[in-house]
Amino acid sequence: MRQSTLFGRTLREAPADAQTPGHQLMLRAAIARQTAAGLYTLLPLGLRVAKKVEQIIRQEMDAIGCQEMEMSVLAPAELWRETGQWDSMDAILFKLRDKNDHEFVVSYTHEQVVTHHARNEILSYRQLPVMVYHFQRKGRDEARPRAGLLRAREFVMKDAYSIDADTAGLDRAYDLQHQAYVRIFQRLGLDAISVESDSGAMGGDVAHEFQVLTEAGDDRILICSACDYRANNEKASRRLEAPAATTGVPAPSEIATPGTATIEALVDSLKLAPGELLKTVLLKGKGGEVVAVVLPGDREVNEAKLRKLLDIGDLRFADDADFKRSGGVAGFVGPVGLRARIVIDTSVGERAYVAGANKKDTHLRDVVPGRDFQGERADVHDVRDGDACPRCGAALALRRGVEVGNIFKLGTYYSEKMGATYLAQDGTRKPFVMGSYGIGVGRAVQTIIETSRDERGIIWPFAVAPFEVHVVALPMTEATVREAAESLVATLEHDGVQVLFDDREESAGVKFADADLIGIPVRVTVSKRGLAAGTIEWKLRNEAEARHVPQDGAARSIGDTIRRMREAR
Amino acid sequence: MRQSTLFGRTLREAPADAQTPGHQLMLRAAIARQTAAGLYTLLPLGLRVAKKVEQIIRQEMDAIGCQEMEMSVLAPAELWRETGQWDSMDAILFKLRDKNDHEFVVSYTHEQVVTHHARNEILSYRQLPVMVYHFQRKGRDEARPRAGLLRAREFVMKDAYSIDADTAGLDRAYDLQHQAYVRIFQRLGLDAISVESDSGAMGGDVAHEFQVLTEAGDDRILICSACDYRANNEKASRRLEAPAATTGVPAPSEIATPGTATIEALVDSLKLAPGELLKTVLLKGKGGEVVAVVLPGDREVNEAKLRKLLDIGDLRFADDADFKRSGGVAGFVGPVGLRARIVIDTSVGERAYVAGANKKDTHLRDVVPGRDFQGERADVHDVRDGDACPRCGAALALRRGVEVGNIFKLGTYYSEKMGATYLAQDGTRKPFVMGSYGIGVGRAVQTIIETSRDERGIIWPFAVAPFEVHVVALPMTEATVREAAESLVATLEHDGVQVLFDDREESAGVKFADADLIGIPVRVTVSKRGLAAGTIEWKLRNEAEARHVPQDGAARSIGDTIRRMREAR
Repeated sequence: MRQSTLFGRTLREAPADAQTPGHQLMLRAAIARQTAAGLYTLLPLGLRVAKKVEQIIRQEMDAIGCQEMEMSVLAPAELWRETGQWDSMDAILFKLRDKNDHEFVVSYTHEQVVTHHARNEILSYRQLPVMVYHFQRKGRDEARPRAGLLRAREFVMKDAYSIDADTAGLDRAYDLQHQAYVRIFQRLGLDAISVESDSGAMGGDVAHEFQVLTEAGDDRILICSACDYRANNEKASRRLEAPAATTGVPAPSEIATPGTATIEALVDSLKLAPGELLKTVLLKGKGGEVVAVVLPGDREVNEAKLRKLLDIGDLRFADDADFKRSGGVAGFVGPVGLRARIVIDTSVGERAYVAGANKKDTHLRDVVPGRDFQGERADVHDVRDGDACPRCGAALALRRGVEVGNIFKLGTYYSEKMGATYLAQDGTRKPFVMGSYGIGVGRAVQTIIETSRDERGIIWPFAVAPFEVHVVALPMTEATVREAAESLVATLEHDGVQVLFDDREESAGVKFADADLIGIPVRVTVSKRGLAAGTIEWKLRNEAEARHVPQDGAARSIGDTIRRMREAR
Repeated sequence: MRQSTLFGRTLREAPADAQTPGHQLMLRAAIARQTAAGLYTLLPLGLRVAKKVEQIIRQEMDAIGCQEMEMSVLAPAELWRETGQWDSMDAILFKLRDKNDHEFVVSYTHEQVVTHHARNEILSYRQLPVMVYHFQRKGRDEARPRAGLLRAREFVMKDAYSIDADTAGLDRAYDLQHQAYVRIFQRLGLDAISVESDSGAMGGDVAHEFQVLTEAGDDRILICSACDYRANNEKASRRLEAPAATTGVPAPSEIATPGTATIEALVDSLKLAPGELLKTVLLKGKGGEVVAVVLPGDREVNEAKLRKLLDIGDLRFADDADFKRSGGVAGFVGPVGLRARIVIDTSVGERAYVAGANKKDTHLRDVVPGRDFQGERADVHDVRDGDACPRCGAALALRRGVEVGNIFKLGTYYSEKMGATYLAQDGTRKPFVMGSYGIGVGRAVQTIIETSRDERGIIWPFAVAPFEVHVVALPMTEATVREAAESLVATLEHDGVQVLFDDREESAGVKFADADLIGIPVRVTVSKRGLAAGTIEWKLRNEAEARHVPQDGAARSIGDTIRRMREAR
């Protein structure tokens, strides 16, 4: 491929809105271009990387007996109505209507379509187990697309689905996929760790994410410093301190707290630690109920946990009418006497707290949960850096990560809703037991950039590099150089080596800067000076030193090196 | 691949609404399944065929220096507004709106996005010429999807785009693509002919379609019986007879034609040939004008030609108000004295005709076009079977065809509208000169089925067959048979042969019927009787006779045959 006519030009500077180092390099190296917020074109260099990523995923899926197929991007609303997700996932779905007023979704996931096919194609247990997958574009009406391909509004996913007769079969399929994912990320050069995660809107119980730890990510991961506990912040728990004694605490009594309507103000005026206060957050629950979440003053609500507990898609704060109805007073709300569904976070001990009195400018002291108010116990707080591991008690570290893959045990979540059953060996009809397994291709591509780069550009792992060798001719205007370079490129390409040939009439500075930016593993320089000495220079992108090889036989020795690199990967 | 757990079951009967033989076989052989009108899932067998089709197309695109990239399915409305096609192509576009009220189209084609990228990436003539392509899902809000994958509402296209500095460059690119298309369809086993076509809503002037002649198609193609003239009915013309003499024709005079408001009724009552009458069709033109199309009574309007002439997306008949405005009288409308834009079809001679008098129950005789009424001349009639070739005068034959590919010289249609220019060698800015080149992958797959089949099922050309060998074990319950078959399959797969293994506990009748239906080129039968005689049976799908090979060395001899078939393709 000649660089002079390669579609997509490198940029000296990244656009100002490029948010992460990988996002900047992705744009500068002409990997992809945005056409609208969250919509991207993969330019030829980026497509070559994406295709290699896909092929690695495909090989590992095929190796575990997963069958490739291809479902459409548009799916009829009816299938999404059967699962209830037409409404429950509305916030992130691109929906449309055809000229006959039929509704469709730009598929965000394909469980609905797979389950529909399964109920038609699989009649008997004899046809089980089955795993299928496809690579397909997904749409997500993301309010805040960010950081290029890390969170786009349209993206290619490999999504696989396992269909089994029972949970033992699902467990086997889940393990096979988990192992395949480990191999895939190894081959992609991504240091991904498997962490426990929340299954969220996808349904099901058990789920894991594969996270690559990088500051570019917007997931928060808790990692134990001693044992192997790792969990997404949306799912993570912590070991709680033993509860303090509650005996001998007097009944609650009012204290005047004029104008101190925040935890910070109370801490200042009462000279208490935040953990000695109770924070009560009023929210709208399902079907209009008012929900009061009670936490220690030093803890924050974890939105994902709370959404899951309340079974709602979006958290919304209570409005004036809700305050009135529940008897809460804004700034001074507390659980005692409140007319609401009360959720007491597991961080709240059975000890005396200061809490709002539901009366203006007033708090209560000596409020003891369980004694002075009742409520359901639930873990709805954010676990944070330094908290105790729920398994071993050692300190948890909080890290940022990019979720490059996820696997879900769906169980019968979809098959029961969609009436997807098979004839079991015992003659009864049973619902399929299913799992689903996703990898975002574009996100993987950019995560590789985020984690494999230096100040000059991308350093592609060999297995996914857009080309294997970058031949730079200096200068192209010199006939001997041009002819030697053309001949070298022709021989390498004839031998099956993937070559990008910088045939532009640019300075050495521009060409070397672009080579470092684009990050092809091997750079070969054909220069006037080198040819005079009978040598050609070659240099690995991830090494500082260049080497020189004799011009005679250079193509063969470079080709041999490339073949060794292919085998080593 | 084991057939027992292959996802997608064969069907004894095709669904009643399967419209063509290929549509029926495509469903029966589990190539694809419909999920909603015009939306299809490619099942594993179908995906394997589609991937081979894609790979052949990819190789031929790469061979002519076309660069693969990948644009998104969703495109922002803004780019389509720049070309005016957001409105002009509205009838067939799937449109949607995100939660922030931004509008998008499910791309039907990608000229708009490619031209947008070209104007950003290509600064100078030094970066030209460029050809790019991608495989991507397209959406078309087709009112009448038909015949399975032949006319779907979502489908994968390979669409390529050439970007050149001038028309000479475009001509070179167009020829390269034309030649690549010839090779592609040859390799796919499709007997496609190149025909002149209308560029339609895509813009541009010169266009060719690649048509496969089959009754399953809904395109109509005129083919000369003597020379190489071939054209789509939407574009075809014919050699016209020399005009009759017009001298000595008296002035028009009224004839009473009570209740004879159709050509047929007139022919009956006046004892004239249909060609002696004039038919006048009133339509709504652009911007509300009334258009009268005048043809001989034995000719039909060609909608595509007329749409292009009038520059409108849809033909609509005139309504009562239009009749009133123009002075036309329904059933007795004629061109003399009509207040409308009058289009006189080229079939109309300068001779005496009978025409409507714009007066109830009345016609005019001796109406001479050009003398008694004026209008613009245009070819807006349907050419039909037996008409004279416009090049050589020999008889044209009308055939049905499926358009499997199309190529367009777009010229500066897009680049001018979108301000897509480059710095030319002479220092001025010039618009890109572009072409576009499409192949529908799913349509190609089904067209192969339409044209390569017998009464028992599909006969896949080797190059695109889902598997190379179909191993049938009879019966699987017999240990010696099962073991011999498993061993044969393992050896073949180890040698890289693509094998579908019918390991089901079904009768010989069911298994052979499915093998013929699915249509894999080579069927290998491992049976109890054969093993007793030390032989294994093998049979080509397109031959009647089976052969027997010794069991010892069967895997090697089958593998050798497959390798020869690969090389021969």
